Amino acid sequence: MGSILLAIAAGGVGLVAAALYAWRVMRQPSGNDTVREIGALIQEGSSAFLRKEYSILAVFVVIMFVVLAVFIDYNVLGNTTIASLREGGAVTSDGPWTALAYLAGAAGSALAGFIGMSIAVRGNTRTATAAQHGLNKALQVAFSTGAVMGLTVVGIGIIGVSALWLIFENPSVIAGFGFGASSIALFARVGGGIYTKAADIGADLVGKVEAGLEEDDPRNPAVIADNVGDNVGDVAGMGADLFESYVGSIIATISLAFLALSAGSSYSFDEPKAVLPLVIAGIGIIASILGMFLVRTGDKADMGKLLWTLRYGIFGASGLALIGTAIYINSTDLPFNLFWVVVTGIVVGQVIGTSTEWFTSYEGLKIGKFEFNPVKWIAQQAQTGHPSTIIAGLSIGLYSTVIPALAIAAGIFFANELAGLYGIGLAAVGMLSTLGITLATDAYGPVADNAGGIAQQAHLDPEVRKRTDALDALGNTTAATGKGFAIGSAVLTALALLVAYTLVTGVTTLDLLNPKVLIGTILGGLLPFLFSGLTMQAVGTAAGAMIEEVRRQFREIPGLREGKEGVKPDAARAVAISTEGALKAMILPGMIAIIAPIAVGALMGAEALGGLLAGSIVSGFLLAIFMANAGGAWDNAKKYIELGNFGGKGSDTHAAAVTGDTVGDPFKDTSGPAINILLKLMAIVSLIFGPLFV
Amino acid sequence: MGSILLAIAAGGVGLVAAALYAWRVMRQPSGNDTVREIGALIQEGSSAFLRKEYSILAVFVVIMFVVLAVFIDYNVLGNTTIASLREGGAVTSDGPWTALAYLAGAAGSALAGFIGMSIAVRGNTRTATAAQHGLNKALQVAFSTGAVMGLTVVGIGIIGVSALWLIFENPSVIAGFGFGASSIALFARVGGGIYTKAADIGADLVGKVEAGLEEDDPRNPAVIADNVGDNVGDVAGMGADLFESYVGSIIATISLAFLALSAGSSYSFDEPKAVLPLVIAGIGIIASILGMFLVRTGDKADMGKLLWTLRYGIFGASGLALIGTAIYINSTDLPFNLFWVVVTGIVVGQVIGTSTEWFTSYEGLKIGKFEFNPVKWIAQQAQTGHPSTIIAGLSIGLYSTVIPALAIAAGIFFANELAGLYGIGLAAVGMLSTLGITLATDAYGPVADNAGGIAQQAHLDPEVRKRTDALDALGNTTAATGKGFAIGSAVLTALALLVAYTLVTGVTTLDLLNPKVLIGTILGGLLPFLFSGLTMQAVGTAAGAMIEEVRRQFREIPGLREGKEGVKPDAARAVAISTEGALKAMILPGMIAIIAPIAVGALMGAEALGGLLAGSIVSGFLLAIFMANAGGAWDNAKKYIELGNFGGKGSDTHAAAVTGDTVGDPFKDTSGPAINILLKLMAIVSLIFGPLFV
Repeated sequence: MGSILLAIAAGGVGLVAAALYAWRVMRQPSGNDTVREIGALIQEGSSAFLRKEYSILAVFVVIMFVVLAVFIDYNVLGNTTIASLREGGAVTSDGPWTALAYLAGAAGSALAGFIGMSIAVRGNTRTATAAQHGLNKALQVAFSTGAVMGLTVVGIGIIGVSALWLIFENPSVIAGFGFGASSIALFARVGGGIYTKAADIGADLVGKVEAGLEEDDPRNPAVIADNVGDNVGDVAGMGADLFESYVGSIIATISLAFLALSAGSSYSFDEPKAVLPLVIAGIGIIASILGMFLVRTGDKADMGKLLWTLRYGIFGASGLALIGTAIYINSTDLPFNLFWVVVTGIVVGQVIGTSTEWFTSYEGLKIGKFEFNPVKWIAQQAQTGHPSTIIAGLSIGLYSTVIPALAIAAGIFFANELAGLYGIGLAAVGMLSTLGITLATDAYGPVADNAGGIAQQAHLDPEVRKRTDALDALGNTTAATGKGFAIGSAVLTALALLVAYTLVTGVTTLDLLNPKVLIGTILGGLLPFLFSGLTMQAVGTAAGAMIEEVRRQFREIPGLREGKEGVKPDAARAVAISTEGALKAMILPGMIAIIAPIAVGALMGAEALGGLLAGSIVSGFLLAIFMANAGGAWDNAKKYIELGNFGGKGSDTHAAAVTGDTVGDPFKDTSGPAINILLKLMAIVSLIFGPLFV
Repeated sequence: MGSILLAIAAGGVGLVAAALYAWRVMRQPSGNDTVREIGALIQEGSSAFLRKEYSILAVFVVIMFVVLAVFIDYNVLGNTTIASLREGGAVTSDGPWTALAYLAGAAGSALAGFIGMSIAVRGNTRTATAAQHGLNKALQVAFSTGAVMGLTVVGIGIIGVSALWLIFENPSVIAGFGFGASSIALFARVGGGIYTKAADIGADLVGKVEAGLEEDDPRNPAVIADNVGDNVGDVAGMGADLFESYVGSIIATISLAFLALSAGSSYSFDEPKAVLPLVIAGIGIIASILGMFLVRTGDKADMGKLLWTLRYGIFGASGLALIGTAIYINSTDLPFNLFWVVVTGIVVGQVIGTSTEWFTSYEGLKIGKFEFNPVKWIAQQAQTGHPSTIIAGLSIGLYSTVIPALAIAAGIFFANELAGLYGIGLAAVGMLSTLGITLATDAYGPVADNAGGIAQQAHLDPEVRKRTDALDALGNTTAATGKGFAIGSAVLTALALLVAYTLVTGVTTLDLLNPKVLIGTILGGLLPFLFSGLTMQAVGTAAGAMIEEVRRQFREIPGLREGKEGVKPDAARAVAISTEGALKAMILPGMIAIIAPIAVGALMGAEALGGLLAGSIVSGFLLAIFMANAGGAWDNAKKYIELGNFGGKGSDTHAAAVTGDTVGDPFKDTSGPAINILLKLMAIVSLIFGPLFV
């Protein structure tokens, strides 16, 4: 009880710090008239998208609220539900608590996305303006903007879970919160991801390749949509995504503590183990805030120094979080092995992140004589044309799954050896404990990217663009590590939820020799393929429409291509195309994620559903890594060529590399990340509805 | 006993029929001097490759022979092996029987590949020559060539398994035969697949796209290598592949019958169930031969009629095989349900094949107002450039896994309901029972393709090329169905082998909640990704070298590009590049397939290895379908544009479609098919070595 209040307090501190960072951003000058005008267009487009998206999701949320209240809380089918396990049988809750928690989770996720985006669309103009005065200044503004996002996510997340747990001490209720967060996250990630990549591809292919314009040229009709996309996809989408990872890992671990002592009929829990994830998360928030103080640099900093600045912050925060965790565990009756589980989680996340860096940065890996550089190899293959570039990137992406898979396997092994299946959830909590700062370093990237776009469109001094580019490039590297953490934690969280699911349903084995489990596993393995196929197709379709529209504007608006004074593209039309394409296309994959586990559970039973979750985790994990790394490697291969290698910009090799980069866009920023959420969402849906299928 | 002799007799009839078909091909005129000269070049290149490949594999086979003799037959570790189960404990075999059976399997596979290729490189010139006299004539020659291959494969396969079983009645020994077939098949598929696609890509990209030559233009230095590739990859590689599927499914089913009554300590079998797969295979051979008589057409046949000609043959053979099976089962004490299992297998194969057709042919699917046409959609997306084409094909490929996965799930369900886990193996046997004729229709495609290439290079009448093109296009459609059968039967066979594996190791459950099994499943899921990444990279690297070489020849050989009289490309150099690239690159993936299961079994135990097999089957199945369908869809999207749609040949849209087709090449013809073998090879390695890890 005391510990939980401390966790809530840490969440409060996080929100206060977020408010302070927001204030710090807002008091920065927002730039000259042109900058403000462009900023306003981006703000408008982003808000319009979020408003439309949330109004669609509101309908969905209300329906799910009713479903949860009827089938789970008031339990009209009379099945054993998690909520009723406490009483040892099928009972009715004394209120629609799971449904209300669902609402809270959905609202929390939407709020975190909204706040993050609101500050991002204000931080971008201010970063551009600050970059006129130097690199450090710009870094501070961009990073502060990211910090608002990071701290808001963890603050809302921990307060929500802790408060619900304090009031209800009921795993069904907190699972409801997680379900709310997951379902919004899925739609936000998919919708935002489709939006941003359709705009990005449209802007790049016609603007840069066909019309020969620079990135972010104001004549390009899709540029504003592209900038909006950075905010709705990379900021709001990512915020909702990680909000969900964060609360999901905590909820899964609490559920395992809850049910660890008994399964099926009666209800009990191991309180210290249930509280531990909340405490670790609380410690992590404080550590993240302290780590943020380390992020500052001199004005003459080069890329290497900038990177180390951010790393000091992250490593510092991790170190502090570990120290705090060790002290806390030592002060309780909990076995000290749990500390090593947290370490395991952090190490696994770091290994996956580092592997992603090797596969996607043009530094690659060099140990003595051994050199391994996939990015340069892709760039080199680009010399023999478009297909060679694609084949190279696909092959790199496919086998780049090796290290992450081994790391996850090792992580499962150690976590289980140290603390049983409970350890799998706790490792995920450890991995995400310093999310406050890692998310800040992630979210600052799109802000710097946007700032660069604004600087270009407002014709600021080229020096400004150079500075924002340096910040952006840095953001790409930290984003690689961030993706490693996101995927790794998603897998561990989904596994922990799967274990919790088997406990609440009383499924004691998931035997692959049982044809039902086997069939479930095959269908589960299928879902990430289906899901990413649909999201890729949505990006392709929307991007196609965008390309046609940009071509049309260049064709039909006289003087646009030539840059005639006063001639402006119809940016609103491009924004509308992305918005519609994204919102229409997010429905089907989203519904599949929710309906598939319920349908398999209802038709084939709880064991088949368990198999489905396991199958989805295995194939989804591998697909997600494949897509993230192939996309990242193509992106940097293109940048490597743009540095002047293999013919540089404008060469055929560059054109081939642009093809790779463009294919990689939906891989790494739409389909790949959405798989993470798919896995967790299906697991949490199963956790809540599972008992109905016993 | 009597039934087995009948099976052997059927195999003998198959070989005799193969010889008759070969004689029929050989007495055809082999064409004018130019045709014969080109044919000789292709023959030479193909034989040289096969010789080199087999001489490398010979070393490997000898090593494996020793390993099997020492650890399995003479059982120096003193573990329980399958061979020793009969005596109820660890014993030594009275001879190196498993090792010898391994040799026989390897030799059988190599022989089937060699015979198929030898006749194919002779059938191609004869088909080209026959095409001068009409479509029917050419169809007969090409189809007869394919029939030699199909009947040789099934003949050698059934005689080998039946004879070994008759002599030893020992599942370890017949598993050894399967292992021999699998290991050669893997290397042949990977080596041949890399060869053919490196050559194909090199020939296409530089020849067609850069130099603006027609397909198969004799000035193109990579054309001969490309033609050789058709033989070593699409004929010899496919022959070895399906030889392995065929014997693998029979062996898996026999093993299940052998062990169905007891597990672990003592050894017994259900004789009628063990004999049944051999009998079904025997009936299938006779039915295939009868079906082949139905393949004949008039000279005025159009595409539709040609397709139906082949379909009559296949449907006729399937119908006869089913009737024969029903009569046989009815005449024994076996439950008649087993007949329905065979029907299930055939239906599942047909469903997967038809789904592949929908996703990869430009007819697509049309039911009333509903129209679904992925190929046309890809072609349409190609209008917005290279990346759109790739994104479109990838998305189609990803979600095209849905119907096959549902079909396999349903097949497992029904087979298990009807006959327990034994049914899974039997369904695979049913699916492959008429392999004799389906393989003939598959193998005839590359022969027609080659014939077209020869006609082009020898400057035969354009009418000849048109006729061979018609045959080739038809081959693509039947190949789609063939791929469905290959993948579907691979999954069922691998699953049956997995079940047999658990029986010989005494593993009674593969519980995903057991961390060892879970870790095994993750690692197993990883292997197809790693494997296809490596094979894709090998194709990319070899194709890159080929492209450089072709560019160099056009640059350095004066008069080559202009087609000056007497100037010839250095075809031998191109052949050497493909050969070296393929042989070097096949080693690593091949070794992984054999070492990974042994390492996991030895380090983590029999349960982890079971998980590894299951994980590999789930992810491998989905990846294989994804790759096959994406590749097929891109191929036909390009062809659809070449028919004059969306700008036709030479347009930007066409260039984008060529990119898609080229990326699809290693997808559908190297990495995808090799996954099938990977799954079965790992399962059979586990079946043989599994008992050592208990």
